[in-house]
Amino acid sequence: MKVSVIGATGYAGIELLGLLCRHKEAQVKHITSESHSGDKISDLYPHIRGICDLTLEDMQKLRQIGEDSDFIFIALPHGHAMKVGVALNDLPVRIIDLGADYRFNDTAVYEEWYKLPHVHKNAARSYGLAEIYREDIKKAKIIGNAGCFTTAAILALAPLAKHRLIESDSIIVDAKSGVSGAGRSPKLSNHFPELYDSFTAYGAVGHRHTPEIEQALTDLSGEETIITFTPHLVPMSRGIHADCYAKLKEGVTAETVTAAFNKMYCNEHFIRLIGAGGYVATKNVRGSNFCDIAWHIDKRTRRVTVLSVIDNLVKGAAGQAIQNFNIACGFDETEGLDFAPMYP
Amino acid sequence: MKVSVIGATGYAGIELLGLLCRHKEAQVKHITSESHSGDKISDLYPHIRGICDLTLEDMQKLRQIGEDSDFIFIALPHGHAMKVGVALNDLPVRIIDLGADYRFNDTAVYEEWYKLPHVHKNAARSYGLAEIYREDIKKAKIIGNAGCFTTAAILALAPLAKHRLIESDSIIVDAKSGVSGAGRSPKLSNHFPELYDSFTAYGAVGHRHTPEIEQALTDLSGEETIITFTPHLVPMSRGIHADCYAKLKEGVTAETVTAAFNKMYCNEHFIRLIGAGGYVATKNVRGSNFCDIAWHIDKRTRRVTVLSVIDNLVKGAAGQAIQNFNIACGFDETEGLDFAPMYP
Amino acid sequence: MKVSVIGATGYAGIELLGLLCRHKEAQVKHITSESHSGDKISDLYPHIRGICDLTLEDMQKLRQIGEDSDFIFIALPHGHAMKVGVALNDLPVRIIDLGADYRFNDTAVYEEWYKLPHVHKNAARSYGLAEIYREDIKKAKIIGNAGCFTTAAILALAPLAKHRLIESDSIIVDAKSGVSGAGRSPKLSNHFPELYDSFTAYGAVGHRHTPEIEQALTDLSGEETIITFTPHLVPMSRGIHADCYAKLKEGVTAETVTAAFNKMYCNEHFIRLIGAGGYVATKNVRGSNFCDIAWHIDKRTRRVTVLSVIDNLVKGAAGQAIQNFNIACGFDETEGLDFAPMYP
Amino acid sequence: MKVSVIGATGYAGIELLGLLCRHKEAQVKHITSESHSGDKISDLYPHIRGICDLTLEDMQKLRQIGEDSDFIFIALPHGHAMKVGVALNDLPVRIIDLGADYRFNDTAVYEEWYKLPHVHKNAARSYGLAEIYREDIKKAKIIGNAGCFTTAAILALAPLAKHRLIESDSIIVDAKSGVSGAGRSPKLSNHFPELYDSFTAYGAVGHRHTPEIEQALTDLSGEETIITFTPHLVPMSRGIHADCYAKLKEGVTAETVTAAFNKMYCNEHFIRLIGAGGYVATKNVRGSNFCDIAWHIDKRTRRVTVLSVIDNLVKGAAGQAIQNFNIACGFDETEGLDFAPMYP
Repeated sequence: MKVSVIGATGYAGIELLGLLCRHKEAQVKHITSESHSGDKISDLYPHIRGICDLTLEDMQKLRQIGEDSDFIFIALPHGHAMKVGVALNDLPVRIIDLGADYRFNDTAVYEEWYKLPHVHKNAARSYGLAEIYREDIKKAKIIGNAGCFTTAAILALAPLAKHRLIESDSIIVDAKSGVSGAGRSPKLSNHFPELYDSFTAYGAVGHRHTPEIEQALTDLSGEETIITFTPHLVPMSRGIHADCYAKLKEGVTAETVTAAFNKMYCNEHFIRLIGAGGYVATKNVRGSNFCDIAWHIDKRTRRVTVLSVIDNLVKGAAGQAIQNFNIACGFDETEGLDFAPMYP
Repeated sequence: MKVSVIGATGYAGIELLGLLCRHKEAQVKHITSESHSGDKISDLYPHIRGICDLTLEDMQKLRQIGEDSDFIFIALPHGHAMKVGVALNDLPVRIIDLGADYRFNDTAVYEEWYKLPHVHKNAARSYGLAEIYREDIKKAKIIGNAGCFTTAAILALAPLAKHRLIESDSIIVDAKSGVSGAGRSPKLSNHFPELYDSFTAYGAVGHRHTPEIEQALTDLSGEETIITFTPHLVPMSRGIHADCYAKLKEGVTAETVTAAFNKMYCNEHFIRLIGAGGYVATKNVRGSNFCDIAWHIDKRTRRVTVLSVIDNLVKGAAGQAIQNFNIACGFDETEGLDFAPMYP
Repeated sequence: MKVSVIGATGYAGIELLGLLCRHKEAQVKHITSESHSGDKISDLYPHIRGICDLTLEDMQKLRQIGEDSDFIFIALPHGHAMKVGVALNDLPVRIIDLGADYRFNDTAVYEEWYKLPHVHKNAARSYGLAEIYREDIKKAKIIGNAGCFTTAAILALAPLAKHRLIESDSIIVDAKSGVSGAGRSPKLSNHFPELYDSFTAYGAVGHRHTPEIEQALTDLSGEETIITFTPHLVPMSRGIHADCYAKLKEGVTAETVTAAFNKMYCNEHFIRLIGAGGYVATKNVRGSNFCDIAWHIDKRTRRVTVLSVIDNLVKGAAGQAIQNFNIACGFDETEGLDFAPMYP
Repeated sequence: MKVSVIGATGYAGIELLGLLCRHKEAQVKHITSESHSGDKISDLYPHIRGICDLTLEDMQKLRQIGEDSDFIFIALPHGHAMKVGVALNDLPVRIIDLGADYRFNDTAVYEEWYKLPHVHKNAARSYGLAEIYREDIKKAKIIGNAGCFTTAAILALAPLAKHRLIESDSIIVDAKSGVSGAGRSPKLSNHFPELYDSFTAYGAVGHRHTPEIEQALTDLSGEETIITFTPHLVPMSRGIHADCYAKLKEGVTAETVTAAFNKMYCNEHFIRLIGAGGYVATKNVRGSNFCDIAWHIDKRTRRVTVLSVIDNLVKGAAGQAIQNFNIACGFDETEGLDFAPMYP
């Protein structure tokens, strides 16, 4: 398959490029950058020298890129991908957008949280969280790759939502992310001396991943779900750890909870159930497409705490995009993703 | 005042020693260690050379140490301090225990959570959280210095509990700590390559700081309070960040919440209110006795999220001990603690 | 090829196992551990679950393992591999030892620096630094994989030594390593709070990698070479950065130096020449088998400084072992190693 | 003493401000910032809230500030302090410049390495390295505070230079610094994800601290000294570790070397000699004004390696400025600096 990457110079874009270069079925045709066109990608990212030395092109040639490609991956800030989607709408090329533009069934939700008019409301799209929307992904023209925090939170809560084991108004997600999630543009908040040896929250109310989690949980449970979501910055480069708290419904036991996880994920290669009473660590999934999940039942409070970890740039972005690409193309779902996490 | 430190070789003990050496009213007479008696403290901790080069003594001379001292600080694992307390009960020396032995009003709670019989049930003691129990601390013979997670959580929630602004069964504390909180004994879980660039939870249900937080909140609110508490390890050395979630009671507004914080803490030197909608970072308090607090009201979910940070070895241990010492002796509460955090 | 790993539970062993699992031509038959036999490797290293879930065996079955395997990788502390070598000497199985036992042409040097009698002096062996000893590696029964610091230092200095551009008594190697190089056994010096946010040297005189570097440089230049070598611990997990200083011989120019690097390495896939005046960063090679090299000529002092970086667990251990395995078996040298470094 | 800080918003400036606030003899009158005048310093640096809440002024009032102050500290980029020096030349106020403008006896050296004309060539100044130039500092009107790398390197080599124990053309300084040394302005090279878990050199030839080290060593030894100096970035916030290599002159023994260190530094409070064969760690001096020094003699190569550590923002900048201030004013040299390093 001929593939291209629109916006290859962010952290998600470069991760994707590295993964595509080892994918047996993909051949990278074009990579673009708005600010660095004409440069070799390996001059911006010396680590990839010898693996990929393509030259970045600009968006002027978007139509030609669309014609040259079977699949296009978009790793641009939100608001840009939907313009690309419109521009290529009449071509057979399929699209995976790593941003938020195609994640919402109801574009009014997008417009409310992202403060932007949506210009591609009728796109033939699927939400790109493979373990839950696999059938939709297979045939979608446009796939709205799930966000990083949302992937960790939804995978952690999906079995409980689907089997209606938790109170839908009791959910709190306290999520922690490595700094790579904030992108490559230098700013004071991500300046090394400021962040190193420190821990802080941000976006305590109103982070844009909130409605995305709510959409999936509402969809799975059939119950209107409103959550509290707080993201944090961990002084590390990669990884997301989500603590998902919820009140168990009357009569739900530890066994019911465990059974729900086992039933939903027993055949999922990328989900590793650590089980009841276990712990997960971001390092155990670093660099890989795995999502590890453990859970705890507190009998005193009748709450369940689900712990999940992913690599924000892999299962939370580029790896998930490859997984969706594999599903969409009918390849083995692990193609290009079947390697061990980097440890230690 | 003549002071001694029982158990000076852990991280809390050495921090305390460093602080005592700059305290104008304290003169360190004895320091002890069970495993390193006869060694100079500066051979175990070269950073303190030139500041304190005392020789560690063993516990054989405990009575003599008690007679030589006006105040004794104990920084031993739980279960040991109460034996010291019993042994020195008839002497005029006063005691601040940095461990858990004297933190509980009801020693049955201690026995349940720490799985140990309590041998000093009738001790004349106060819980050592200065901002809340200052009057008790002034006259107590034994002060049970508050724990690190508990200090961060209780200070964050106290105004809301005291004014009964939150549902007492809705509280979740998701707390994150630097690794120094786990002590100086090497083990795999704190081995550098394992923990570095990783984030993980531990003690998801049943951590021993749970009942300590519940005791204070129940005491403040007069309402039986049961919480969910989850601690985490951050790949950094010092600092605790607590996210405290609770449901607001009917009719409670953002203004009520802010007023409660302002009222309770307006004259507290070591509590810095960052205010509604703000953020706190562990680095802003690192090395100091400050506790910074911010809060957020989510109108969609009617929850309040209180964020608080402390340095686990200072306000969470040694600094709080000095503060309690100052209160107990009638010194200026900031003596020996009036320096800036280390930044960056 | 059927391969086995003797000593799979150290950091080098587990890295090797992860790499072998994605190698198209290798099938892992046995893995061993002296202290964890009977356990599944993925219980000790949860990150590898789903990639490799083999059970660790003990060394009792060494002969059988040797008979079952075409190639054996040994990742044991020095002193143990040579006993394995003796025990399997009569079998056709070939061996790559990641330790020091087979690195020295003159076993008397080994005995002097490692304070151990050598029990396999006449082994048919090659020094396992692929870019320099490729021809020997092809046919060796036993390959003594080069050490981590030594790989970085020798690759940096080899072109200068081979063309005799530097004074052989002027060489200083100031090397910095991530902590994973010190192994997985917890000890105070690698305890997270001790090492984090700190930098220190160790082994300032007499580190055992010294004679290994000297052997290669003497061999390449034909001039007896004695060096000063100082290793350091960087508060990070992986990576080695070597600064190699030497005095240029009379008449040697910047152009001569650059020509020597280009000539020696122009066809080496895993060596990336960043060039004169450039810089290298450990992150650019992290997780990969690359060695990046840059150099600087100081006209004021007539010294050359060569900077090189590798990942200590890949090009400095497991990756180099795979590369040697590929060479020894006649496979493409990049098989199983053709992926991008992990960035950021 | 009334003191003011010109340029209080950089890392050195804010460190200085924190130290001045606890200095018994200093009263801070004015603090300035070119880009943040009108703001409270504690809005830019929340950690210092409650310790210092002064408002930043602009440079328009420089004359008035000069008249209001007994001592002025300047923490501006090089090139700016000398203009301040000229503007205040006729006032009695004394100046400590933390930058490079007043560090060179020969302003032609400054002009060559800093590529700037010097506008205050005849200033009555002293080089501000207290342990070596104490007598000059006492009476200087302007003190050119020594640089961070230079302080570590000169203190390490001074006894050897002074007693002419090393070959003056054999000196190599391989120095490593925490990232705070690069300042607070965000840029890609100091962006958290780029630098974290990485190690790199910079300025391999021609770093501006080179001539400053050469000036002091030449002055001490009376022998023209040209060195090789390479700085590196360590993924940590604070601390400098210098490895100083030199060839011993004929007949110099280990005992001679040790005697030289003991003689020169036996009465220096801030220099802690760890001794022959020892190691130093940046964490042991973090947050303090100490410089720890150890040394190693390699009999094989006849080289000495001196290891030294300082905190770049304290002994390498603000602490040294306070020490110079104490000397210049006749205060106890440790006033305001007599606290323990922060550990762990």
